[in-house]
Amino acid sequence: MKRNKISVIGSGFTGTTTALMLAQKELGDVVLVDIPNMEAPTKGKALDMLEASPVQGFDVNITGTSNYEETKGSDLVIITAGIARKPGMSRDDLVNTNAKIMKTVAKDIATYAPDAFIVVLSNPVDAMTYTAFKESGFPKERVIGQSGVLDTARFRTFIAQELNLSVKDITGFVLGGHGDDMVPLIRYSYAGGIPLEKLISKDRLDEIVERTRKGGGEIVGLLGNGSAYYAPAASLTIMAEAILKDQRRVLPAIAYLEGEYGYSDIYLGVPVVLGGNGIEEIIELDLTEEEKKALDKSADSVKQVLSILD
Amino acid sequence: MKRNKISVIGSGFTGTTTALMLAQKELGDVVLVDIPNMEAPTKGKALDMLEASPVQGFDVNITGTSNYEETKGSDLVIITAGIARKPGMSRDDLVNTNAKIMKTVAKDIATYAPDAFIVVLSNPVDAMTYTAFKESGFPKERVIGQSGVLDTARFRTFIAQELNLSVKDITGFVLGGHGDDMVPLIRYSYAGGIPLEKLISKDRLDEIVERTRKGGGEIVGLLGNGSAYYAPAASLTIMAEAILKDQRRVLPAIAYLEGEYGYSDIYLGVPVVLGGNGIEEIIELDLTEEEKKALDKSADSVKQVLSILD
Amino acid sequence: MKRNKISVIGSGFTGTTTALMLAQKELGDVVLVDIPNMEAPTKGKALDMLEASPVQGFDVNITGTSNYEETKGSDLVIITAGIARKPGMSRDDLVNTNAKIMKTVAKDIATYAPDAFIVVLSNPVDAMTYTAFKESGFPKERVIGQSGVLDTARFRTFIAQELNLSVKDITGFVLGGHGDDMVPLIRYSYAGGIPLEKLISKDRLDEIVERTRKGGGEIVGLLGNGSAYYAPAASLTIMAEAILKDQRRVLPAIAYLEGEYGYSDIYLGVPVVLGGNGIEEIIELDLTEEEKKALDKSADSVKQVLSILD
Amino acid sequence: MKRNKISVIGSGFTGTTTALMLAQKELGDVVLVDIPNMEAPTKGKALDMLEASPVQGFDVNITGTSNYEETKGSDLVIITAGIARKPGMSRDDLVNTNAKIMKTVAKDIATYAPDAFIVVLSNPVDAMTYTAFKESGFPKERVIGQSGVLDTARFRTFIAQELNLSVKDITGFVLGGHGDDMVPLIRYSYAGGIPLEKLISKDRLDEIVERTRKGGGEIVGLLGNGSAYYAPAASLTIMAEAILKDQRRVLPAIAYLEGEYGYSDIYLGVPVVLGGNGIEEIIELDLTEEEKKALDKSADSVKQVLSILD
Repeated sequence: MKRNKISVIGSGFTGTTTALMLAQKELGDVVLVDIPNMEAPTKGKALDMLEASPVQGFDVNITGTSNYEETKGSDLVIITAGIARKPGMSRDDLVNTNAKIMKTVAKDIATYAPDAFIVVLSNPVDAMTYTAFKESGFPKERVIGQSGVLDTARFRTFIAQELNLSVKDITGFVLGGHGDDMVPLIRYSYAGGIPLEKLISKDRLDEIVERTRKGGGEIVGLLGNGSAYYAPAASLTIMAEAILKDQRRVLPAIAYLEGEYGYSDIYLGVPVVLGGNGIEEIIELDLTEEEKKALDKSADSVKQVLSILD
Repeated sequence: MKRNKISVIGSGFTGTTTALMLAQKELGDVVLVDIPNMEAPTKGKALDMLEASPVQGFDVNITGTSNYEETKGSDLVIITAGIARKPGMSRDDLVNTNAKIMKTVAKDIATYAPDAFIVVLSNPVDAMTYTAFKESGFPKERVIGQSGVLDTARFRTFIAQELNLSVKDITGFVLGGHGDDMVPLIRYSYAGGIPLEKLISKDRLDEIVERTRKGGGEIVGLLGNGSAYYAPAASLTIMAEAILKDQRRVLPAIAYLEGEYGYSDIYLGVPVVLGGNGIEEIIELDLTEEEKKALDKSADSVKQVLSILD
Repeated sequence: MKRNKISVIGSGFTGTTTALMLAQKELGDVVLVDIPNMEAPTKGKALDMLEASPVQGFDVNITGTSNYEETKGSDLVIITAGIARKPGMSRDDLVNTNAKIMKTVAKDIATYAPDAFIVVLSNPVDAMTYTAFKESGFPKERVIGQSGVLDTARFRTFIAQELNLSVKDITGFVLGGHGDDMVPLIRYSYAGGIPLEKLISKDRLDEIVERTRKGGGEIVGLLGNGSAYYAPAASLTIMAEAILKDQRRVLPAIAYLEGEYGYSDIYLGVPVVLGGNGIEEIIELDLTEEEKKALDKSADSVKQVLSILD
Repeated sequence: MKRNKISVIGSGFTGTTTALMLAQKELGDVVLVDIPNMEAPTKGKALDMLEASPVQGFDVNITGTSNYEETKGSDLVIITAGIARKPGMSRDDLVNTNAKIMKTVAKDIATYAPDAFIVVLSNPVDAMTYTAFKESGFPKERVIGQSGVLDTARFRTFIAQELNLSVKDITGFVLGGHGDDMVPLIRYSYAGGIPLEKLISKDRLDEIVERTRKGGGEIVGLLGNGSAYYAPAASLTIMAEAILKDQRRVLPAIAYLEGEYGYSDIYLGVPVVLGGNGIEEIIELDLTEEEKKALDKSADSVKQVLSILD
């Protein structure tokens, strides 16, 4: 039997934390990849992590590199690469800079790991997943973006605190994009199976939804420098696990739509069945008028960003 | 039943990674503590980590603070606080700066968590553990320093790579201090129970020992900026687990000696039994003349550092 | 720090499997207890299990005994003791025989582990939990019966098979007693947060509910000899974990009611918050008329059984 | 990605407990196989176990069958089938009865799972592994017997109790067969890396070795009816894990020898490297004269049993 091989592109905090969490679950050997002038620190982080393995009790290999040849034959590739928006940078510049990075990465993956699944975190994630899809030439079910797992993780955390209950018994449900474009489906969110609307007042729920929308910003504001990485890494890891262990989990993911929910040729956050074939199904729900309107707005945002792409 | 409470002092990379690993093992609720002007990022890291919990599946609370009152009643406190040596800084300045930090921290722990166990990582660790012991006024079995678990983790990693075997089946054994002061007991180090000397040439073993000695420096050199934190955090976590789960594990630890191995009133790395009462036994081994000489040198180094303390 | 101590009364398949699962989760040292003429096999099973620990990697003690003194100071006691109904035995005889066993066990627990939590599995479980409550003299929040966790586990399994989805994303919700007395709340049962009624036809759902009701009998029928023990043991273990780790989980449990849902002085299956204080809350839901009627029927069954008790 | 598939032949206590432990580690979907007139209970046990999965949190399928077609494409097959020696039955009868079972099983495996690894537990294990090897026609590295992992697990348990230390820090080392034929290498057995001979008197060690030799009998004696299954199942599971996760672990296993240790065309317990290709190496150790003599005796026993085979 051969171990799975997982490549993580981008050795920033999210990339390295994802590598750690993948290794802890022994989902496969991990190759951490960054650009050539980051090769030494990438190797350093991989080695430090590997040196934790005898004590943590996981038994996989972790290596750092800037050479895509080392990703050869990867079963799954997670892309966290990309720059953060800098002061004075226009959104268009950000999008095009990251799209350029994504194009190179996607082509390298297509060359060295033509059968891999791709999970994208890089921002803006809908557009970057679209770019990875187009540039890799992979079938749509093998190119997936992360956003909703993280949003629901935050929502669940806030609800668990509000009700003083175990996070294990709280579920959430979102559609659409991150942040302002997030479309929460409160009616499909529960504590111990009980609809949240029965347990928390509408006003308070609205506040928690709003806090969830701004969840990334809350962490950025607190850190002062940099952005969240623990919860994003955990979210990427659970998506990788669903694919590598063929779990057929129901998770929100950024999927390529061809008519579902009335949209086409777009990557948008929807509930999917994630399993050994990647996105095995897109679950279509009846939406209320309000929800549909919010999802339209979310789709419009994605299209606007896509229109920026050269 | 009440959950354990663990405070981690210092919210740098090692402190936060330790907090994550403690939480993943559900060893207790975690309070991450740093100085007041680091309070916001400390809260941010704690919140980000907590938001990973619904996805990672751990169920403990994690909070960030600069207020020691929030450590009240901690069962165990891990100290990672302290500055790194800066260019141009004398070793004496480093020692005294960190000792000053340690004194404050130890007094706060004595005030708010008088029954806690203390595990120290701050550098230079033998002297800092000594300082924590003196300032807290805690009994010696409750104040412990980390160094050998990390050293053996690195050694085991290198040996596993050398022999292409699972790290699970490699063991190592060290006495004394970190780095140049490390006293490796190769004759007590094995692969699958087979003494390493039967499997690897003396020259190659010497190289691996030397690489282990310089293991921290190797990571520092690769990272360019900062030092190792994954393996150190894993090491602290396994020591915390041994105490909190009363495991009576045989681990190398920095312990207060009162005659053992011929030393007194000194903290030095020796094999101990670590369990629910902290250091439950110090295991005394017959040493070869060479080993004893090396351990003496290690003890001398510690004494020199101790003599610097105001 | 001291390890928790858990006693499991009854060393049949359910008792021993529960002991194994508790040990695997390192929830505490386990004492397996049975009657004197079963002492040798009880010790044998405990020893065999303990001998699995170096390989399974768990680190707790497991012992077998017929002497209640060895349960002294237990934090939690799980009661699986009792006989199964034999051919020709009237239900009244069964109830009174098991109640007699339960009285002795409860008194022994009160003597040797006066601060313990008690979780009861013995049949008929509502009446046996009531008996344990009365005989131990413990406060109601510390005496709890298991039934709904198992019922929902079966229901979730069947639904996961029906939809070909991960069990992780299926939830179920029941009130009332086992079997024919089970009151399923389908409207509070979901796949990935989506109400099951939207995914499965009413007829098919009715069949699955019916299969769940007869879930214990299905296993009995297949085994030919004896009854289910893996899923019951897993259910007991998760309840123990919620208490010992103070998780405040929302779980169905058999709780003592004092006015909740309109019933008094009765043990009945209801949703509770299970945490470090045992049953910390009973969650009261608005029921439909049909549900209320079914719950009344369930309560009547319990009362009838209680009336049999001498 | 496709999940691994593991078949477990024999649905007795060891077979079912192995199935549970494989499932808990999510090593693959499990098919539990027994003879036709045991099909119903086999299905019952598999279903009961599957119903534990939502609560235990594992996400694999478990099925029971008597039809070898359902083992089609298995990656690994564990054979626990065979009868126990009954009063009045000669050893030759036992061997031939079990060899007959083994032949049928091995042929079925060769038909339906021609690329599988086979791990054998059935007794007498050396001869049964030899039979499985010959009948399957599989290469020697894919047909492996279990005995030493269990023996060392017992030894480690007894040593941990003797020294009151964590089992995690105790290692043991054996060659040869089970029971009286076991050849313990005490000089390669340690507590925290320290040779046991330095920690326990020779006499006491002899007693513990003797208890280990009779370890199976001790459990049989206590149970009164039946034999050990928890520790055997854990041992089989760790061997399966080493292969399925390609861990290259150093473990004692019953391997086919072609000159190693001076023996040929025989299955005998020796230290091996167990990984993704099955037995990847046989580790040859220098033996003392005494050890070699004991191993010869062990090999003679195996040959005697082999000579019984029709």
